[in-house]
Amino acid sequence: MITIYGDRISGNCLKVKWTAERLAIPFTWIDVNVVNRETRTETFLAMNPAGQVPTIVLEDGRPLAQSNAIILHLAERSALIPADAYERAKMFEWLFWEQYSHEPTIAVVRFQVKYLGKPRSEVDPALAARAEAALALMDRALSGRQFLVGAQLTLADIALVAYTRFAADGGFDLADYPAVDAWVRRVEHELPIRDPR
Amino acid sequence: MITIYGDRISGNCLKVKWTAERLAIPFTWIDVNVVNRETRTETFLAMNPAGQVPTIVLEDGRPLAQSNAIILHLAERSALIPADAYERAKMFEWLFWEQYSHEPTIAVVRFQVKYLGKPRSEVDPALAARAEAALALMDRALSGRQFLVGAQLTLADIALVAYTRFAADGGFDLADYPAVDAWVRRVEHELPIRDPR
Repeated sequence: MITIYGDRISGNCLKVKWTAERLAIPFTWIDVNVVNRETRTETFLAMNPAGQVPTIVLEDGRPLAQSNAIILHLAERSALIPADAYERAKMFEWLFWEQYSHEPTIAVVRFQVKYLGKPRSEVDPALAARAEAALALMDRALSGRQFLVGAQLTLADIALVAYTRFAADGGFDLADYPAVDAWVRRVEHELPIRDPR
Repeated sequence: MITIYGDRISGNCLKVKWTAERLAIPFTWIDVNVVNRETRTETFLAMNPAGQVPTIVLEDGRPLAQSNAIILHLAERSALIPADAYERAKMFEWLFWEQYSHEPTIAVVRFQVKYLGKPRSEVDPALAARAEAALALMDRALSGRQFLVGAQLTLADIALVAYTRFAADGGFDLADYPAVDAWVRRVEHELPIRDPR
């Protein structure tokens, strides 16, 4: 059985949990508290030198890090990865965009406001603007579509929904992005996601 | 033939060029100047709404963005992607780490110093420290190894060498990271990379 080291406040960790649940892959979940720096202990760093969750340990004891690398590994040969080469490439495009332009803006603002207690008015306006731009880009992409790539749920939806559904924590209003708002509910229902927002 | 829209000062764009060259995939290169905001024109945004290079257009006219998504697409079924499932997962781990922890630090400092003319002493010390930490992590990982994953060159090496070889532009000294320094020369020789540092 695989072991997932994760923090339940982290969308990156929840992605891994949802993917395993969706694919009926049994796992043991071990809580690692990021705020208490439990990712910085010697034991944890031996497993993942980058000191980040999620980290998983495979049945044979080998570790694997980076949320999107983990869900790609768990979902190999499943319907969560499109069979068509171009759709697969578009899925990868979304996965890398998520880690470069979405998580570092939307998740960071949420963390500052909800977990570090920074007043929303003190969040760097340039950072907040980049987060709004990411939501606007998704809203245009999702207009008239059910899912981000092709006609069904893929890893792109799982990776992007993780922090998008927490956007309100950072003071973003999904009502401003109606296609995103409808898509979040659709993905939550489809997976299904039982974790509270 | 595919068309690559890229800027030769961008490691992200050079990754795509090197991968195509290594795999003998013919391409047309179209220069797009990032500093002059040529990625923000209506024509460019129609191709890539994120307004970023590299963007490629496939033979059938369909566009694809995100450097690592592009090189994955070009390299499908080639030796640049490990056949072993765990090695493939580790390659993905490096690709996502590159976009999250390496490019946003090392490439950003380089851009500020070399292209925006900011004195090195005025670079955010926290940003510079994260860049040094990224180089230190690579140095430990490469100690005693020829390549990042397995025994031969993979996309992980191509993606990571892109901005690592430009580290001196941002005031980082690869002599402090001897395993990284030797690996940069090895990858440059292996690909081979003919672009100037």
